[in-house]
Amino acid sequence: MPLVGVVMGSKSDEPAVQETLKVLERLDIPYEAVVLSAHRQPAKVMEYARSAPERGLEVLIAAAGGAAALPGVLASWTTLPVIGVPLATSELKGVDALYAIAQMPPGVPVACVAVGPWGARNAAYLAAAILSLKYPDIADAYRAYREELAQG
Amino acid sequence: MPLVGVVMGSKSDEPAVQETLKVLERLDIPYEAVVLSAHRQPAKVMEYARSAPERGLEVLIAAAGGAAALPGVLASWTTLPVIGVPLATSELKGVDALYAIAQMPPGVPVACVAVGPWGARNAAYLAAAILSLKYPDIADAYRAYREELAQG
Amino acid sequence: MPLVGVVMGSKSDEPAVQETLKVLERLDIPYEAVVLSAHRQPAKVMEYARSAPERGLEVLIAAAGGAAALPGVLASWTTLPVIGVPLATSELKGVDALYAIAQMPPGVPVACVAVGPWGARNAAYLAAAILSLKYPDIADAYRAYREELAQG
Amino acid sequence: MPLVGVVMGSKSDEPAVQETLKVLERLDIPYEAVVLSAHRQPAKVMEYARSAPERGLEVLIAAAGGAAALPGVLASWTTLPVIGVPLATSELKGVDALYAIAQMPPGVPVACVAVGPWGARNAAYLAAAILSLKYPDIADAYRAYREELAQG
Amino acid sequence: MPLVGVVMGSKSDEPAVQETLKVLERLDIPYEAVVLSAHRQPAKVMEYARSAPERGLEVLIAAAGGAAALPGVLASWTTLPVIGVPLATSELKGVDALYAIAQMPPGVPVACVAVGPWGARNAAYLAAAILSLKYPDIADAYRAYREELAQG
Amino acid sequence: MPLVGVVMGSKSDEPAVQETLKVLERLDIPYEAVVLSAHRQPAKVMEYARSAPERGLEVLIAAAGGAAALPGVLASWTTLPVIGVPLATSELKGVDALYAIAQMPPGVPVACVAVGPWGARNAAYLAAAILSLKYPDIADAYRAYREELAQG
Amino acid sequence: MPLVGVVMGSKSDEPAVQETLKVLERLDIPYEAVVLSAHRQPAKVMEYARSAPERGLEVLIAAAGGAAALPGVLASWTTLPVIGVPLATSELKGVDALYAIAQMPPGVPVACVAVGPWGARNAAYLAAAILSLKYPDIADAYRAYREELAQG
Amino acid sequence: MPLVGVVMGSKSDEPAVQETLKVLERLDIPYEAVVLSAHRQPAKVMEYARSAPERGLEVLIAAAGGAAALPGVLASWTTLPVIGVPLATSELKGVDALYAIAQMPPGVPVACVAVGPWGARNAAYLAAAILSLKYPDIADAYRAYREELAQG
Repeated sequence: MPLVGVVMGSKSDEPAVQETLKVLERLDIPYEAVVLSAHRQPAKVMEYARSAPERGLEVLIAAAGGAAALPGVLASWTTLPVIGVPLATSELKGVDALYAIAQMPPGVPVACVAVGPWGARNAAYLAAAILSLKYPDIADAYRAYREELAQG
Repeated sequence: MPLVGVVMGSKSDEPAVQETLKVLERLDIPYEAVVLSAHRQPAKVMEYARSAPERGLEVLIAAAGGAAALPGVLASWTTLPVIGVPLATSELKGVDALYAIAQMPPGVPVACVAVGPWGARNAAYLAAAILSLKYPDIADAYRAYREELAQG
Repeated sequence: MPLVGVVMGSKSDEPAVQETLKVLERLDIPYEAVVLSAHRQPAKVMEYARSAPERGLEVLIAAAGGAAALPGVLASWTTLPVIGVPLATSELKGVDALYAIAQMPPGVPVACVAVGPWGARNAAYLAAAILSLKYPDIADAYRAYREELAQG
Repeated sequence: MPLVGVVMGSKSDEPAVQETLKVLERLDIPYEAVVLSAHRQPAKVMEYARSAPERGLEVLIAAAGGAAALPGVLASWTTLPVIGVPLATSELKGVDALYAIAQMPPGVPVACVAVGPWGARNAAYLAAAILSLKYPDIADAYRAYREELAQG
Repeated sequence: MPLVGVVMGSKSDEPAVQETLKVLERLDIPYEAVVLSAHRQPAKVMEYARSAPERGLEVLIAAAGGAAALPGVLASWTTLPVIGVPLATSELKGVDALYAIAQMPPGVPVACVAVGPWGARNAAYLAAAILSLKYPDIADAYRAYREELAQG
Repeated sequence: MPLVGVVMGSKSDEPAVQETLKVLERLDIPYEAVVLSAHRQPAKVMEYARSAPERGLEVLIAAAGGAAALPGVLASWTTLPVIGVPLATSELKGVDALYAIAQMPPGVPVACVAVGPWGARNAAYLAAAILSLKYPDIADAYRAYREELAQG
Repeated sequence: MPLVGVVMGSKSDEPAVQETLKVLERLDIPYEAVVLSAHRQPAKVMEYARSAPERGLEVLIAAAGGAAALPGVLASWTTLPVIGVPLATSELKGVDALYAIAQMPPGVPVACVAVGPWGARNAAYLAAAILSLKYPDIADAYRAYREELAQG
Repeated sequence: MPLVGVVMGSKSDEPAVQETLKVLERLDIPYEAVVLSAHRQPAKVMEYARSAPERGLEVLIAAAGGAAALPGVLASWTTLPVIGVPLATSELKGVDALYAIAQMPPGVPVACVAVGPWGARNAAYLAAAILSLKYPDIADAYRAYREELAQG
């Protein structure tokens, strides 16, 4: 059963999101990935977020560009931790998405990571760090990865 | 019966939104004003947008700061024209809200106006311009105002 | 008879503006498209805007890059709703055009949409949302499109 | 007879424009100052620019904030040199006006100076530098001022 | 025993960090708060991060302005989830801190929240969302708070 | 004898500056073009600026990228009008040069034009507008060009 | 005999520069402080930089706002290390000065520090770090200060 | 024995850093170059900085993109002068790295140079200017280079 739900705002976000999925696989974290637009499919996004806990999801990752409302809209419908990945898909090259994701109002947090592929990868590592609090296997896998990194 | 629904994301947005209301009153455009947060009250925002047409609303105006998802979330639930007013209420002073409101993805448009009080006033004038296509009285009032302006 | 007048600031804006025209065609909204520069041809722009209502136009869409005065100058000569599309044609890649179009002073509103092709498409959808208030056929076409989007 | 026409976009721009006028007075350059909005009073702006040469004006200075179309609109109606002063009167604090004034398209130049009071003063010094090519008295006054500055 | 370690980069960050502490108290999440500078006290920061797990900490929150290296440096020494709060304490008013915290390189994630007091509060809510995965009491408290918010 | 001195900060600025030269030629304005770096060759820049009037130059145009001190340094050594063209040659793509050229301190003005090729062309047109005050032939050529533009 | 020459671009920069002087005094580094404008007093700046080595100066610190050419102009006239402090004195609040000082072209380096008072203090500490390579007393004083900082 | 330690945050920074190394070689300044990540290898970075003086290093140069903590983290562990080169390797194209490196807090200075290859080269020239205070050969080589530049 997937622990992490990865949502991308558009089909064209798939290459960036592949970076997230590769890291989740490497750390053996079960996930599911879907394409859902906050603005074009608000009802589906609502249902996805609301049913996430009962389907066993514990962390949501959402990648979006431009107005990038997806992570915040997911967060508005759930209390699960939501990680937002700003993508550089609009003409403003990700500054818009970074602001839209980082500047959430008090009460409904989103964990913003870096713009683009860096953030796509770190979203998975951040999910690992969060799930490590509860799942020793994930904790071991993530620590092993970090030790490998430290070797350089 | 109100023609324009004015939504503000937070009580603290009220002073800015007063600028909108004053213009609507001046042009004799019936309106209603509510406080609804896209992130904290997503269900109420959904209901508001969905029921807007049957309650006679023809234009929505939404003012919000920071991640400023409100205009876009309203637009995701309705096909009425939505005008978004970016407010300078976060530490980034409105650039965040401007990007979040202007950079809507294709298919779900929002009409973005200027940051802060300038935009708050222009949201009402833009609503007037839109409603003028259908309501000759509003058209007369708006044209009279513009002629007055032209006198300086 | 065209309902929407689409004005581009320069021949080189044509590829972006094609995105607008394709959407208008898809929704069966009659339009006309012209090339007129606010700074190089101010008299022609003035005449275009002033004669727009008597020629049956109900919404103007103007696309421009750089100082991007075109939407605002059109708006200065008419009370029709004007939608502005900021283009990324200058070295500042559209931030300049976004600010120039969004930051209109009180009294003379422009409806700003996203920079570049996203905005070019949304200008047409926003025109559809506006015209829907008056034309049931356009309302039907726009709602059908939005429902299609919602299916994903 | 005034040589320099100083135009401000709004009454509220007067304090900034006083800086311009003080420098013109100090250098004994005859001027006139008017309040004219490019967006609210396009016909008056057109007439002002068109009649400027026959009234003896040789340089125009225009100060405006926000979308700041005024200098460019004046330049669109005349071939006199136009100096634009971006003011920090909108919520974006002058970056918008700077971009709107600096990023003029090819063919219709505006001489942009610094945002706010620095620029307001330099607009007058730039006018002096321009008029110095033709008027030895202005050249002497401007050179004397610069020598004074060099003393510190 | 504290579950959350709140680190501020300087004494002067205390007012902002009080917003974090108030939320943690409201949700009954035990915490500790310390002042430690990443640049001035690197050894103390290293020791703090390294000893965090054995002292029972499960989430770190770090608030800093300017170059804002604190969250990233903490993250470099631990695999616990680190939440970074960018503060507007430098002359660049928080854009610098936002970029420095959000733009972490792949492998060492930080969860960035909004600049200033909004983010300070959301850091605590995000910690609550994370800890909710493991602690039902925190989950209940956080859900209750969100339901209260939804009432408006 | 040249009336306009065109200075570029580096050999690599030549393609941009060609745009300036083509316009000057088209308007039959005699010019000279040199490569001089404000930072690498301060003595040569000083000599160039100081000797400009006695060599008959009446307007200086300087193009530079990055810190873009060239127009300001020329202006510091002369009272001739100096037009600055910000180039997008550094990694910051011209925003740096725009700020460095526009934000001159009071007393030593530079006339800033658009970033890159737009500005390179407009620098020549602005020189034409300035020289038109004194040289009827240039005035005629510039007015003829503007009328041609107005035809579209 | 002073080792460090501190130059400020304008009298109004004195409060910021006091921060530099206080640190130099605290570390017992002899200095001199002068007011010299790169744009208004280019000859004096040239003489100051050229005569610096023979007067025993080994490091220059220059603080300036806006176009902020001062550090770069000093560097153009000397091979001594030049530290530049961007000040937030213009309407653009120091971003302009930061870009103008940081973005020096290859061959003529300036060591840029933070905008405003943070940078004003760090300019002195950076001078101390540089002079420490040669002067054991300064090295001792700087190391002692850093150890004190580490205590917190 | 190397005098300058050049540290890059990632293998992918090598092309930019080659620009630094070429200048150091040209000026005959002995150096060493290593790849060390501040976030992935904090212990190695600490050891590198701490052991730098005993290994004879007198200046450190650190190049990094994105959050770009490397120069500041090195500076936190040593009192040697540290020069930071912001690289445009993230999606924000170096503005993030520029802010992260320039905006160091008081007490722990970093000498920031330009973003990308310009800065990579100037880091070496700045190191030369610093080492010139102590090593006459380096002073001669650097002065000769600057004289060559002045010839153009």
